[in-house]
Amino acid sequence: MLAAQGGEACGGNARGVSRFPFSTAHAQAVGVVAAWMEEAGLSAGCDEFGNLIGARPGSGDGPTIILGSHLDTVPCGGIFDGALGVVAGVEVAAALRESGRGLRHALAVVGFADEEGHQFGVGTLASRCVTGRIPRERFASLRGRDGRTLAESRAAFAPGLPRCAFPERAAAYLELHIEQGPVLARSGRRVAVVSTITGIARTVVVLEGEANHAGTTPMTDRRDALVGAADLVLAVGALARAEGAPAVGTVGALSVSPGASNVVPGRVELSIEFRTTDGVQLRSLCTGIGVEAHQVAQSRGVSCHVGDWDLRDPVPMDEGVQRAIARAIHEAGHEPFVMPSGAGHDAMVLAPHVPSGMIFVPSAGGISHCPREWTDWEDAALGATVLLRTVMLLDEANLRAARVLPSHDAS
Amino acid sequence: MLAAQGGEACGGNARGVSRFPFSTAHAQAVGVVAAWMEEAGLSAGCDEFGNLIGARPGSGDGPTIILGSHLDTVPCGGIFDGALGVVAGVEVAAALRESGRGLRHALAVVGFADEEGHQFGVGTLASRCVTGRIPRERFASLRGRDGRTLAESRAAFAPGLPRCAFPERAAAYLELHIEQGPVLARSGRRVAVVSTITGIARTVVVLEGEANHAGTTPMTDRRDALVGAADLVLAVGALARAEGAPAVGTVGALSVSPGASNVVPGRVELSIEFRTTDGVQLRSLCTGIGVEAHQVAQSRGVSCHVGDWDLRDPVPMDEGVQRAIARAIHEAGHEPFVMPSGAGHDAMVLAPHVPSGMIFVPSAGGISHCPREWTDWEDAALGATVLLRTVMLLDEANLRAARVLPSHDAS
Repeated sequence: MLAAQGGEACGGNARGVSRFPFSTAHAQAVGVVAAWMEEAGLSAGCDEFGNLIGARPGSGDGPTIILGSHLDTVPCGGIFDGALGVVAGVEVAAALRESGRGLRHALAVVGFADEEGHQFGVGTLASRCVTGRIPRERFASLRGRDGRTLAESRAAFAPGLPRCAFPERAAAYLELHIEQGPVLARSGRRVAVVSTITGIARTVVVLEGEANHAGTTPMTDRRDALVGAADLVLAVGALARAEGAPAVGTVGALSVSPGASNVVPGRVELSIEFRTTDGVQLRSLCTGIGVEAHQVAQSRGVSCHVGDWDLRDPVPMDEGVQRAIARAIHEAGHEPFVMPSGAGHDAMVLAPHVPSGMIFVPSAGGISHCPREWTDWEDAALGATVLLRTVMLLDEANLRAARVLPSHDAS
Repeated sequence: MLAAQGGEACGGNARGVSRFPFSTAHAQAVGVVAAWMEEAGLSAGCDEFGNLIGARPGSGDGPTIILGSHLDTVPCGGIFDGALGVVAGVEVAAALRESGRGLRHALAVVGFADEEGHQFGVGTLASRCVTGRIPRERFASLRGRDGRTLAESRAAFAPGLPRCAFPERAAAYLELHIEQGPVLARSGRRVAVVSTITGIARTVVVLEGEANHAGTTPMTDRRDALVGAADLVLAVGALARAEGAPAVGTVGALSVSPGASNVVPGRVELSIEFRTTDGVQLRSLCTGIGVEAHQVAQSRGVSCHVGDWDLRDPVPMDEGVQRAIARAIHEAGHEPFVMPSGAGHDAMVLAPHVPSGMIFVPSAGGISHCPREWTDWEDAALGATVLLRTVMLLDEANLRAARVLPSHDAS
């Protein structure tokens, strides 16, 4: 797909795509996709945040139906994550042009500049900029891994395209994406409508015991922070499993101090992350691990400080858009599979502003964010067909216009 | 005690002693103690490995009774660990001189140059050199934290003393040391005779699962290396507690890859250390955790590789020397407390060559290797008194000479 436009060599034998926002690889990808947009009858441009936008007017003056996803990748990522939704959007435009089919609504295909958050440390950065969730001042000052601010990176980013604006009023946002998990592939279905994008709660926990000599400190005298941390790691998994799918709980990072084989650990810092599609359940998981942490502290003789939770509520997809996607899947001869998204996507940022929906296609083995990421081309094409049919169904409806950038944030 | 000769400032407000082998602080300490040795009637010199040796001949031609411990410290260590045994040895010589009491045996007081292993990464380095366990070739090439070889460090070490040799034939080795644990202080006794120096078994375990997206990977699909590691951390403690004191088990170091809050851990590397005074029990603990590791691997869907064990058997102290120490404690008006040492000491390196024994005095709160390390001066003085009486008791016996450096290693 876009592998050739981001094919920097990755470590070892593993090849993959490392296409970071405002990099040369990103600029090349923008150039290629912009050319495809023009062939498909879209006028290509680049907005102030580096997003590639291909637009065509509608026959009426209705608001825009936006199709999109992101063009950036994680380091050594796969070829589908993000790029699929952008290229499929262009394919929808091409199919409409070839069939001579007009739309009442204007259509825009967007390749967001930065969704993965690798370069600037903020996920869904580009969609947060266009919806005003990240104010212009912050956009200007965010500093990337290369030391440059986002404003400097954007200023030096010259994809050779006219400057354009992100659609101000939109009727719907549609995003085709790979699932990045094993659920759809295992279901035997080939395409899914996303019900909700999972909520995420993250915190950092610090356990403090007493570093001591591993030879002279009897077991009964120890205040071992790592033993307490082991209890917590197991409790996080047990709590998530007790709630059942789609709830998940993860300790992904953990560091031990002083970290020598002959010293009883005095301090452990670890991350806790819960995800689930029910906001009440999400809060209940946070409360539950707080109770466990208190018990661990008491039983292991350590102190346990649970930091503030960074809690992002689940984002339900628009019901009308979900119905249209389900009907489009039916019309394409398939049974719609309804599932939540365990990962975050640009659609979750757009959804509070614009009626939004997502289409998932299977990830072989549930593998993503690595070079082995794979989706059968037939499934990718089916996803694009469903995207096209959804656009046509929505175009027949009288969609209300929604402001992408809330008026009080507009400047 | 020797605080002034190694009082480099330590981090924060915590002051402490950082006296690394062949440092300026070490040279200053050697100078001060050598002067005290001369005042106490000992001829002070420095051997080829940097050990400070103060010697006086006996009235007969019997082998040497060696008193000693080490002069180096851990970073920001306390004032007692090591230095106490050296200074008490000098005090023994001073008391003998003041009382005009002669000994049949020659007497040597040794301040070993490097016991902690901080500078060159090898614990009890100096005693290993004098007993030939570290051959001269290896001594020459060992490289320290400052980039210099041990030979270079020694060559530049100029404490202004004549070169002397470590006693070739010894009758006994006696070491007074702080316990560095809470057992003696809690017993209510003030001085102990050490029965055995604990055996140590160490290994590194690697758990490999599969790094995956923390949002899209259901709990039932995870092969989480950190969850397996948590099982193992708890199993190490449970196995040691099941054996009862003095067995201890510690996971002191643990690292997680890739180590991000939103990625299921794919790989964990951790240290396991068991210590106990029974060699059979030590091997049983190693076998036991191997069985646990296999079960963890099966139940968590990860692979678990237990590395080779670095196993050092327990070292019993000489029974005759133990009896002499116990009698000396009695004569000093105290009940002898018999206990193992959970930490390693120079005595464990000398013991296979020379009948060896250790005297412990209490560590307040069991704290050591930090500036808060403390032993009441009365207890330190009592330890020195017991050391003196033990020397006198041993001097009355017909002790056999033992070669410190085995003849086949002599060069």
